[in-house]
Amino acid sequence: MNSLFDLPEGIQEASAAEFFENLLSDGKGMRVERIVSWGHVTPEGEWYDQDHDEWVVVVEGEARLGFADGTERALNRGESVFLGRHVRHRVTHSSRPCVWLAVHAPELKPE
Amino acid sequence: MNSLFDLPEGIQEASAAEFFENLLSDGKGMRVERIVSWGHVTPEGEWYDQDHDEWVVVVEGEARLGFADGTERALNRGESVFLGRHVRHRVTHSSRPCVWLAVHAPELKPE
Repeated sequence: MNSLFDLPEGIQEASAAEFFENLLSDGKGMRVERIVSWGHVTPEGEWYDQDHDEWVVVVEGEARLGFADGTERALNRGESVFLGRHVRHRVTHSSRPCVWLAVHAPELKPE
Repeated sequence: MNSLFDLPEGIQEASAAEFFENLLSDGKGMRVERIVSWGHVTPEGEWYDQDHDEWVVVVEGEARLGFADGTERALNRGESVFLGRHVRHRVTHSSRPCVWLAVHAPELKPE
């Protein structure tokens, strides 16, 4: 990427997939990923269920996550959330665009 | 923090120090740090010389880094730079505000 805020070519088209890009890794399971959504949501009934921890921050736009216990979490620009391993979650809303920065690692401790 | 883009109280005052805040760690030397500068630069003749790798991205504003070999690197909003261990660098310019996100770890590989 040139800029964290770059929009992938064609992301605005209805057929375009959400965009995922690894920016950084430590060779021991930690990686930093840039995600660009354009209204994308997780398909109904599907969940992210990861065997590692994740911390994600919305750096542009806003989004909403839904959790398996029925709760929802709005993420405005600049807001972050810690997603412990196996906390099942789905994206229920994303702005056009919504740019995320995600840190994945076997174990993470938010401060 | 509530938002990555929050300004620490009083940061605009001439006497205010640059603001550093740990957001995340993995217990094995990796940490994610938020930095808020308000025109702060590294004092003349001083250098950051770290024994770990760093990756830093400017999420708000812009900045400039100077290196011991005399080169400079401008960082516009959204731009990132990889700083290998012991690459001596200093901040030679920061906007008001300039918000940085830095990832520190013993070893990092930019992709």
